[in-house]
Amino acid sequence: MEEAVVGLGAVTVLGVLEQVYFSLQVIYARRKYSVSPPSTNGPPEFERIFRAQVNCSEYFPIFIIVLWTAGVFFSQAVSSCCGLLYLYGRLCYFRGYSESAHGRLVPLYFSAKVLWVLIGFSSVGVLLTFCRVYLNLDLLQELGFF
Amino acid sequence: MEEAVVGLGAVTVLGVLEQVYFSLQVIYARRKYSVSPPSTNGPPEFERIFRAQVNCSEYFPIFIIVLWTAGVFFSQAVSSCCGLLYLYGRLCYFRGYSESAHGRLVPLYFSAKVLWVLIGFSSVGVLLTFCRVYLNLDLLQELGFF
Amino acid sequence: MEEAVVGLGAVTVLGVLEQVYFSLQVIYARRKYSVSPPSTNGPPEFERIFRAQVNCSEYFPIFIIVLWTAGVFFSQAVSSCCGLLYLYGRLCYFRGYSESAHGRLVPLYFSAKVLWVLIGFSSVGVLLTFCRVYLNLDLLQELGFF
Repeated sequence: MEEAVVGLGAVTVLGVLEQVYFSLQVIYARRKYSVSPPSTNGPPEFERIFRAQVNCSEYFPIFIIVLWTAGVFFSQAVSSCCGLLYLYGRLCYFRGYSESAHGRLVPLYFSAKVLWVLIGFSSVGVLLTFCRVYLNLDLLQELGFF
Repeated sequence: MEEAVVGLGAVTVLGVLEQVYFSLQVIYARRKYSVSPPSTNGPPEFERIFRAQVNCSEYFPIFIIVLWTAGVFFSQAVSSCCGLLYLYGRLCYFRGYSESAHGRLVPLYFSAKVLWVLIGFSSVGVLLTFCRVYLNLDLLQELGFF
Repeated sequence: MEEAVVGLGAVTVLGVLEQVYFSLQVIYARRKYSVSPPSTNGPPEFERIFRAQVNCSEYFPIFIIVLWTAGVFFSQAVSSCCGLLYLYGRLCYFRGYSESAHGRLVPLYFSAKVLWVLIGFSSVGVLLTFCRVYLNLDLLQELGFF
């Protein structure tokens, strides 16, 4: 069974390492700009890094959830590739946002698009499996794909 | 194996779409009330929408985790139904909180109750499986349920 | 199949209950220090409890993800034990942070170390499975472990 998910596992581990990297950047920024916890207000440079990490953290569980849903119900290979693209987009987003509020936009839109693609594959995969299991209907065959 | 989890997958995809909807509402509210990132302070109308989305995001991973734990170790059908109720409760919560701080309370208590039910089913399911696997003991049979 | 993951399921349920406990503490602190939602600013005592809960919530999905990745691809027993240590560390962190900003440091470093160990096991597990599945190579055997 593990061979059906090991690609998803690899992307997951990479994603976790990226999140750890973002968290470490916030810790460094706290030291650099002298913002001690629990405060989260400081100079714009600090607030941008802090918000970038918070935003990535907020989306990370959703990313992992659709990565696995798309991977299990649709295709592991397609889902893993999209996952790598998403993680690359998030790295660009974090670096762009650290430099300027405007710099976050292009990679944010890119990673949002990749997330939409993964959500699309998840939905299609779950729908196809649903029809196959509960309606005994192979939608792809019915629609003439095979 | 997929037939044992496709219902959970369907609820998961619905939940992800709901989270995306909440995130889009925050983006619209940022434009409407002219609150540019990284600031998260603004008029009460904006802060309520922002806090509603943050609160839903905070609970979303826990919801998905107990949905799947209850679904895998207890019952897919029961868990999926509870999942749909939770997502409906969260939608009412988001709409209520957008209108007034008081409007969030009733649906918040409702979705908290559904979450407790899912946590209960997860605990029971894990306990029963634990006894069956490690103690070779069928608790339900021992207690005279069957 | 459930016997291969029931230990992970048990640690997961315990972790969810711990997160619920932290959330309840924030609700009690809101009442005690009269900080009504959506505000998250208040006396330092409240802000410390609030930040402690936010920090635990932020790390919780990552913890669950590496717990399961390490458990599925490396070893359920090792991963479950690390999971219990992590949850204990987080409890100490929450209590320490509630008392003083300094009190959070020792348990924070402890739980961070446990998380690193879990990330290490996840990485090793995924790498070994990857080599076995795609390269038909048993790395442990090649390196002379067995």
